[in-house]
Amino acid sequence: MSQTSSAPAYVVGIDYGTLSGRAVVIRVEDGEEMGSAVCTYRHGVMDTVLAATSEPLPPDWALQVPADYIEVLRQAVPAAVQAAGVAPESIIGVGTDFTACTMVPVTADGTPLNELPGLRDRPHAYVKLWRHHAAQAQADRINRLAEERRETWLPRYGGLISSEWEFAKALQVLEEDPALYGLMDHWVEAADWIVWQLTGSYVRNACSAGYKGILQDGAYPDRSFLAALNPGFAGFVEEKLEHRIGALGSAAGTLSAEAAAWTGLPASIPVAVGNVDAHVTAPAAGAASPGQMVAIMGTSTCHVMSSGELREVPGMCGVVDGGIVDGLYGYEAGQSGVGDIFAWFTAHFVPPDLVDEAAGRGFSVHELLTEQASLEDVGAHGLLALDWQSGNRSVLVDHELSGLLVGLTLATAPHEVYRALLEATAFGTRTIVETFAAAGIPVEQFIAAGGLVKNRFLMQIYADVLNLPISVIRSGQGPALGSAIHAAVAAGAYPHVRAAAAAMGGVQQEAYLPDPDRAESYSRLYAEYVALHDYFGRGGNDVMRRLKELRRSARRIPKVLA
Amino acid sequence: MSQTSSAPAYVVGIDYGTLSGRAVVIRVEDGEEMGSAVCTYRHGVMDTVLAATSEPLPPDWALQVPADYIEVLRQAVPAAVQAAGVAPESIIGVGTDFTACTMVPVTADGTPLNELPGLRDRPHAYVKLWRHHAAQAQADRINRLAEERRETWLPRYGGLISSEWEFAKALQVLEEDPALYGLMDHWVEAADWIVWQLTGSYVRNACSAGYKGILQDGAYPDRSFLAALNPGFAGFVEEKLEHRIGALGSAAGTLSAEAAAWTGLPASIPVAVGNVDAHVTAPAAGAASPGQMVAIMGTSTCHVMSSGELREVPGMCGVVDGGIVDGLYGYEAGQSGVGDIFAWFTAHFVPPDLVDEAAGRGFSVHELLTEQASLEDVGAHGLLALDWQSGNRSVLVDHELSGLLVGLTLATAPHEVYRALLEATAFGTRTIVETFAAAGIPVEQFIAAGGLVKNRFLMQIYADVLNLPISVIRSGQGPALGSAIHAAVAAGAYPHVRAAAAAMGGVQQEAYLPDPDRAESYSRLYAEYVALHDYFGRGGNDVMRRLKELRRSARRIPKVLA
Repeated sequence: MSQTSSAPAYVVGIDYGTLSGRAVVIRVEDGEEMGSAVCTYRHGVMDTVLAATSEPLPPDWALQVPADYIEVLRQAVPAAVQAAGVAPESIIGVGTDFTACTMVPVTADGTPLNELPGLRDRPHAYVKLWRHHAAQAQADRINRLAEERRETWLPRYGGLISSEWEFAKALQVLEEDPALYGLMDHWVEAADWIVWQLTGSYVRNACSAGYKGILQDGAYPDRSFLAALNPGFAGFVEEKLEHRIGALGSAAGTLSAEAAAWTGLPASIPVAVGNVDAHVTAPAAGAASPGQMVAIMGTSTCHVMSSGELREVPGMCGVVDGGIVDGLYGYEAGQSGVGDIFAWFTAHFVPPDLVDEAAGRGFSVHELLTEQASLEDVGAHGLLALDWQSGNRSVLVDHELSGLLVGLTLATAPHEVYRALLEATAFGTRTIVETFAAAGIPVEQFIAAGGLVKNRFLMQIYADVLNLPISVIRSGQGPALGSAIHAAVAAGAYPHVRAAAAAMGGVQQEAYLPDPDRAESYSRLYAEYVALHDYFGRGGNDVMRRLKELRRSARRIPKVLA
Repeated sequence: MSQTSSAPAYVVGIDYGTLSGRAVVIRVEDGEEMGSAVCTYRHGVMDTVLAATSEPLPPDWALQVPADYIEVLRQAVPAAVQAAGVAPESIIGVGTDFTACTMVPVTADGTPLNELPGLRDRPHAYVKLWRHHAAQAQADRINRLAEERRETWLPRYGGLISSEWEFAKALQVLEEDPALYGLMDHWVEAADWIVWQLTGSYVRNACSAGYKGILQDGAYPDRSFLAALNPGFAGFVEEKLEHRIGALGSAAGTLSAEAAAWTGLPASIPVAVGNVDAHVTAPAAGAASPGQMVAIMGTSTCHVMSSGELREVPGMCGVVDGGIVDGLYGYEAGQSGVGDIFAWFTAHFVPPDLVDEAAGRGFSVHELLTEQASLEDVGAHGLLALDWQSGNRSVLVDHELSGLLVGLTLATAPHEVYRALLEATAFGTRTIVETFAAAGIPVEQFIAAGGLVKNRFLMQIYADVLNLPISVIRSGQGPALGSAIHAAVAAGAYPHVRAAAAAMGGVQQEAYLPDPDRAESYSRLYAEYVALHDYFGRGGNDVMRRLKELRRSARRIPKVLA
């Protein structure tokens, strides 16, 4: 490392999650976490009503308020520095990461449209969170047209563009609120918007531009393709999307005076180009080699893996040259609902006696259900679930799919359903691992990261279902550490991300080993999962799509969309 | 009517349900209900542990304790007479009805085996409740063998004998506890056992002997058939089952001195031959004509209908000559879980905030969920369920099937699942109605009875799903009134059940009419239900069976069965 002064230097990593933002102060020398703080978004996720008007939102919407992100800078960063007990002047750089694809519609100076006079009651003026799934109709049209025209970029995304990504979401804005679309100067990844707020300059990070923005070999989908989708969409790329690209690990700029005042950090220190939360976690786990899959398990799960080979893997989210580590192809896959599913179940389907028991024992409801579930053998609940409550990102890439539970009896108890949901997400991960292997990109090491690694029972289920040892990231703050690693590189403390990852990241090797008996039983259940997965997900019975259509036609549509 | 004295005469009807017994005092002249009382069974349904030992029971077991039934005579009958304010000496007869097929293993004098010294820890010594579903393996063998041998009785039961019935349950006793089977002198319907306790004489009622005991054209399955099932079972019919048959509406005997002491009723009044709760409800609804289907909707639903035609209806429970009304063929079909499913969901999957809201408004949880569910359009929940939490009695006759929920999202709320469960039971009823129609026995009037008729929203769902007007039995105590009607006939107050039904029973015609728009939407959902019904129930994917097998192999088996 090039750090030569005797006083230790620090960087700040800021991780923007679905419900809150977290700032962590990290020692540059060895990645040691000195202190951290969290700031919960005041508006959370708006998925039933728009806070400003209390008007209902249609199904599958998920919005956020950009000002909540600024609050993280004002609250969490100073609190983290204070908790760390380090002098602000010893902090040499800032790095950030964000959920993706989370999109902010802004004016030329970066002002979010919802902050303009008269637009606060327009749902499309707000941030579309990654799990806004209401652009599936647009995604379907993008996919049909791309297939007809044999667009060369399509196979780079497993053959399917997600409704979560930049083009589908933008097309929904155009088609449902064209006037607002006209007011929008830039359609910006939140990952880049926050760096813009920190530095005053807009730089588009190479990672999300590649994975979410269909930037392949230097080009976006062309004008004739966009015009065929909708004549009004023809100029989308040049008018609203394309912008200077920043390489991962480089500096987007330096901290502005205004942002220095918000954060209490020294003005003019380097700010790294924005990152995606999942991808930035790989270096934090020291995973920079081919065959190392890092699963970032939180509300959803992202799987990232690098390889020297360029392969087309059906249903993956994308492959981007240098998308995770320079010089390797970066692959991404994902499960759109994981911790979200567990949280939905515990919040809405656990009865008072269990909630009281948990409280009485000083447990969370999750902990109580986990304890109860862990006392039973594999298959004792007689249940099987499909983990599609939030749709399926990989390998089916279909957000019209929905969750399923089979095997219910009058004796079925909440902890049994809970366990079936845990298992279903493990089966979903196995589907992804097997799909990569079948495409010639075998997973040689499975590394778990993210908030769910603290559930040891869940980790053991993953080891048994995958029949693979599970290694676990050492840091409890993977994305924030990854952002800090990028900050250290942007600040010049390391020559590149691989070197910084080796010094600052780390993993607990093979923390969970599969049990042969349980792995055998789970293989039987997995075969049942695959049969249901294919029947409901690959056209055997499109009942899930039809139920969603019926649901939309039955619901009242908010006035702005009528 | 033949009643000539000036002072009004009364009868007592006693209805033995799944969780409690209810006694009702009825005026013979017009069926007026004078007073009633309920006695809850102290041991309820033992379906997880055997109360006497606290040892766990295997999956799908459901046992009861016969002494709990005697308590109903001692508590509920005197309380009902007191509530009625009538003089005991004005009571001229007693009638009873029971769940079926609910079986009691007894010695020659009628003593239940669980009351013998040393047998209280043996699960097979107890009553097997109708919803004991652990004899499916035996039922499967009975069905395979009967089909191979082309037994002529098989088509009378829709081609399938249920695991709930007398032969499958007895064969399970023989094969799992042969010593106990050897101690058993009679294998008695609880409907007949309670009459035995009242009168001191054992008479087998024609209804359950026909529907549950495979008595057709005066004969049971023959010795060679039984020997082929299991050599030890060859003598089952002559040794343990066959006995004098009593016609419905006749007297089995008169009230014994001991039973008079229990009940406070006059000794020596006539006691009617036992009845099955569902079948006895038809006369209480005044339904004695072809094409009138009476659905008795409670924990489960039984559908009974008479016809002049003898047809073989696939998957019905049975057709018995005079099984409901003399001179007509009585058809029975059923759904093994209805109110049980709603109760299971509200007891185990409704969170504290809703339970508190219900309590605060003086509602039951059922009422709150019903209110919330009623505010949404058909299909707005995006859900579809299969109502097989307790298996499927008609038309699939398979208790290895289980419940299914599809369409779950992160926005799915408890009242939406609750509504989907209500709807699923209506779809199950429509399947039965359509199967009868396809076999040439059209349902011309649909009459609802049983505890669930008080849920007006549920009744409207049935009208909309069936696209038929729903008439509702006038009495809130259908089975008890039906039993009282039989008591009146047994006491000679009426010449036959039809005459008594005309005077004492009654129905509210077309209480619920279908709404054309909702009926249209439900037809779309019903098509989805049929597709899943056939896929999971008719061999498209036997995952439900395999999950149950895995569940059994994963569970610890109680010592007595090991």
